[in-house]
Amino acid sequence: MSDDRNAELEELLARPPEPTRRPTVPALEEQLHRLHPLLDHGFVRVVDYMGDDAAIVQAARVSYGKGTKTASSDRGLIRYLMRHRHTTPFEMCELKLHVKLPIFVARQWIRHRTANVNEYSARYSILDREFYLPTPDQLAAQSTSNRQGREQVLSPAEGAKVLDLLRRDALQSYQTYAWLLNDQGDGSPEDPERSMLARELARMNLTVNYYTQWYWKIDLHNLLHFLSLRADAHAQYEIRVYADKIAELVAAWVPVAHEAFRDYRVGGGFFSRQEIEVLRRAVDADRVHQALAQSGLSKRERRELLSKLGVEG
Amino acid sequence: MSDDRNAELEELLARPPEPTRRPTVPALEEQLHRLHPLLDHGFVRVVDYMGDDAAIVQAARVSYGKGTKTASSDRGLIRYLMRHRHTTPFEMCELKLHVKLPIFVARQWIRHRTANVNEYSARYSILDREFYLPTPDQLAAQSTSNRQGREQVLSPAEGAKVLDLLRRDALQSYQTYAWLLNDQGDGSPEDPERSMLARELARMNLTVNYYTQWYWKIDLHNLLHFLSLRADAHAQYEIRVYADKIAELVAAWVPVAHEAFRDYRVGGGFFSRQEIEVLRRAVDADRVHQALAQSGLSKRERRELLSKLGVEG
Amino acid sequence: MSDDRNAELEELLARPPEPTRRPTVPALEEQLHRLHPLLDHGFVRVVDYMGDDAAIVQAARVSYGKGTKTASSDRGLIRYLMRHRHTTPFEMCELKLHVKLPIFVARQWIRHRTANVNEYSARYSILDREFYLPTPDQLAAQSTSNRQGREQVLSPAEGAKVLDLLRRDALQSYQTYAWLLNDQGDGSPEDPERSMLARELARMNLTVNYYTQWYWKIDLHNLLHFLSLRADAHAQYEIRVYADKIAELVAAWVPVAHEAFRDYRVGGGFFSRQEIEVLRRAVDADRVHQALAQSGLSKRERRELLSKLGVEG
Amino acid sequence: MSDDRNAELEELLARPPEPTRRPTVPALEEQLHRLHPLLDHGFVRVVDYMGDDAAIVQAARVSYGKGTKTASSDRGLIRYLMRHRHTTPFEMCELKLHVKLPIFVARQWIRHRTANVNEYSARYSILDREFYLPTPDQLAAQSTSNRQGREQVLSPAEGAKVLDLLRRDALQSYQTYAWLLNDQGDGSPEDPERSMLARELARMNLTVNYYTQWYWKIDLHNLLHFLSLRADAHAQYEIRVYADKIAELVAAWVPVAHEAFRDYRVGGGFFSRQEIEVLRRAVDADRVHQALAQSGLSKRERRELLSKLGVEG
Repeated sequence: MSDDRNAELEELLARPPEPTRRPTVPALEEQLHRLHPLLDHGFVRVVDYMGDDAAIVQAARVSYGKGTKTASSDRGLIRYLMRHRHTTPFEMCELKLHVKLPIFVARQWIRHRTANVNEYSARYSILDREFYLPTPDQLAAQSTSNRQGREQVLSPAEGAKVLDLLRRDALQSYQTYAWLLNDQGDGSPEDPERSMLARELARMNLTVNYYTQWYWKIDLHNLLHFLSLRADAHAQYEIRVYADKIAELVAAWVPVAHEAFRDYRVGGGFFSRQEIEVLRRAVDADRVHQALAQSGLSKRERRELLSKLGVEG
Repeated sequence: MSDDRNAELEELLARPPEPTRRPTVPALEEQLHRLHPLLDHGFVRVVDYMGDDAAIVQAARVSYGKGTKTASSDRGLIRYLMRHRHTTPFEMCELKLHVKLPIFVARQWIRHRTANVNEYSARYSILDREFYLPTPDQLAAQSTSNRQGREQVLSPAEGAKVLDLLRRDALQSYQTYAWLLNDQGDGSPEDPERSMLARELARMNLTVNYYTQWYWKIDLHNLLHFLSLRADAHAQYEIRVYADKIAELVAAWVPVAHEAFRDYRVGGGFFSRQEIEVLRRAVDADRVHQALAQSGLSKRERRELLSKLGVEG
Repeated sequence: MSDDRNAELEELLARPPEPTRRPTVPALEEQLHRLHPLLDHGFVRVVDYMGDDAAIVQAARVSYGKGTKTASSDRGLIRYLMRHRHTTPFEMCELKLHVKLPIFVARQWIRHRTANVNEYSARYSILDREFYLPTPDQLAAQSTSNRQGREQVLSPAEGAKVLDLLRRDALQSYQTYAWLLNDQGDGSPEDPERSMLARELARMNLTVNYYTQWYWKIDLHNLLHFLSLRADAHAQYEIRVYADKIAELVAAWVPVAHEAFRDYRVGGGFFSRQEIEVLRRAVDADRVHQALAQSGLSKRERRELLSKLGVEG
Repeated sequence: MSDDRNAELEELLARPPEPTRRPTVPALEEQLHRLHPLLDHGFVRVVDYMGDDAAIVQAARVSYGKGTKTASSDRGLIRYLMRHRHTTPFEMCELKLHVKLPIFVARQWIRHRTANVNEYSARYSILDREFYLPTPDQLAAQSTSNRQGREQVLSPAEGAKVLDLLRRDALQSYQTYAWLLNDQGDGSPEDPERSMLARELARMNLTVNYYTQWYWKIDLHNLLHFLSLRADAHAQYEIRVYADKIAELVAAWVPVAHEAFRDYRVGGGFFSRQEIEVLRRAVDADRVHQALAQSGLSKRERRELLSKLGVEG
């Protein structure tokens, strides 16, 4: 599979660009078809994209009329939309990725339902002998405070032992898989004396750290939602590395939307009614004004914050 | 239509209850099939429901294992799920409503895509002569600060004039509609000398304040999202009255989830990265501790808030 | 609105094309940003697209492995996918349109939920005085056999009378709307003695043949589903003209997929179990073989048909 | 897990029924909470349901008006809706299942995106030592004609060898998993000298025939679509047994809709434009009339079929 794919990618990269009247983002064009390696055998590759920062603005202006044109710059409008959780203008951009990832990561990822997926099928085809093994610094003990987290890293000796076991079982699992398939790679048996077990059955012997791959297409709004959950500190490391890489690609693609996303979603947080009451009692009006003066907040944002805190302007 | 419907509803209300092993909520059973009038001719009616507060807990415990059983009470778990924006357990409850609403309200409402809808079709059937007229206290001038808002209420004289015009045009619009249909109500012409215009054409003459109706079915997670947008002060009054009434029904149905929703979503707010930085500088640690002591926040929530504010525990 | 828009489109059309490494379809590039007028004031305009026929093949080959590469040509594979109702590879293409359409058409259209929409908001902005009037040959009487259909066209005299009424009411409706808004077009009142009614209220006086507009983005699978329902003879004429025009654009964009769609979906039909039993009894084996010999069906399709009819090969 | 669950189910089954005004289906009430065993360790269990055959009719009558009331019986209407691929009325019913299934089956199943899911999380909790082994009659060789199918069953000797290998690797895989977890089952280590590897890491060593479980909630339209694909002869046996069992439950729940589904979807088939042309040439009009006379088709369906075949009535 790998050799075929490399040849195909080189061909794609060698192709001369074609002229288009569609919105085009040079920084993302640079990334098209390039493999971004992740974990030990995984990757992310941009296959196609639709739209750019201006497409978000354009869609918002259809909805809200030309009045928005004079009232705010493109950047201001995108930041306003993100801050106030408008979603439909961000749906007007679309990204298509080719991803190679361990099955257990794929199982988390697929829970994001608002996306289009074509996954490599082990009913039809044979999976390669590629499985994920963590690096030693990622082998950590179960967290005691957080049921879904990791805590201290294993000692080198313990880590080595764990990796040996994971490797041993994965290799064993694949050896049996290959024996059951009994396929030379061209549909003819390695051992003509034995049956070739149906692929849809043989695959059941593989462990969930084996790699699968898919094409994944999603709109920017749902992609940012994916990133907000999967590039988060609470996400499992093995999916987070994918989310972090995709976030970089998004930053190249729609830099203004991505900046707004980081300011208003990633770095931000939700405060409950009761928490806001605590804030209102706990802030000192003078210190609020001082802090505001040094903040990079726009006039409108300052007004919004003062109002949320019940502090006079 | 009205007489038929009243007879049908009376029949539904008169039917003896049947035994079921499904989760049942007596407070919502009370509401089943009762018309809750809204605006001048609209209503909301609960047709069916699936699940209750316990169903949310049950689903969460499938995901997170029995460990959650000992760790927290049902109420604590639901509040935790809401606070941390878990969504799938809330999708396990479902509500089916019958709603009568002006067309312009229906046009906003339908933008919530994750729902099932069967709308009365004016291609097949004839709409009743029922249109929405605001009450005088709802007739307000365009807001100058907010492009989608209302400001001061019109004077009684101006209001009366506006209502006269709205009523005149709606009546005119229906009179033409009925003349074009030329239907006695039984499919035979009122005036046999004239054609009966196709219903799908005649309807184009109706104004968007005419009432339509539909069955609308939605899961609790998406319903709460609908309520967070439509029961909000920024929503247009005419959809807000529906959202407010539905919120009451939700409170009867899943009181714990609804309370958590009010605490963590409705009354709360999102703060950006920059806003949180301002907060961190502006709060006084002593006042935070004082305010926390008087707040109703749980120990866990207090810890979370201190950490968000960078104040020592 | 119109003048601004024309200037904007001319600017878009005048822009020099940019180089891209993305799949590009010259025939659709030709159509980009061109207004295709529909009905009396409506239009469809292609704003952007992602993918081409090859992108469908590429996605299918990820799923089904390289084996598909040798087994069939691209065209054969796309036809196979369409015939056997595979859907996910078609989701890998995306189209974004700008559409201007009467409100009653928009109300049917929006029922297709798997799409992204940004609609012009009459809460924010003022609608133009543009409403739909059918051409005389489209003014037809209610069908007596089909509750949602039209039958014979109205006589010229009757048609003229109908159009007069529709025009009169639409103009009246707009005149009141404009009076209520009391807006010179720049946010200042025409008559400073009167209030400017909130836009979200004034709009309720418009009839549903007024035009709205939106950006609409959808993947090819869901677009073909839309076309199969809305370019169908049972669809209302006023939405069908949009579907027919979009089908033309799809033919320019993905000609192979569109041809397969016409062969296997539009022109085809579903037969029930009982109907197939009737067919099996009613066909003459010799005549089947004769007809097959003259048909353009592939060897594989012939085998499939013989098997469906229980005729020996 | 098993003992806890059995106790919980017995408690659910022992609970006295409660009165409800909701539509109730005694035949499905009988099935509520009963485990239907599938494969070697799997099951399906009905947790809750909303609606019945009458709810489909009710929703359709909202859309199409009371005219439908006199025109056709409930059964006739449901069959009409199914035959003409109306979908929204079927969305008005909802089913919630608890399913235990092998991971590789779950991976196919989850591709049906329009459903609500809460899956047991191996990040939080520990999976039981339960894996799927096919019965000997299900161990079959790869089909040579169909890349995703099975062909002849393996000989008893070969089958026994395959099962030995699958069992050996699954046991080995679990043994390592348990060793890595190092958990006595109460969160304390079996071997206090070693770390307890994070659950989210340890799980990667399990093979995809291990069982997972989830709550799955879906509306009837999407459920029937699921069944049409997964209860089909082309579906993998291991998911088909689930679909077949669910189809039985659907037959108990909405018998009329299920019968229509079998007649018009399962047993039926799509014919392309070219295939219909072949049919038109190959049928003998007399034999069509004869076969129709003996068929159970309604008058309306006969008319539809004659028209499709271009045979005079």
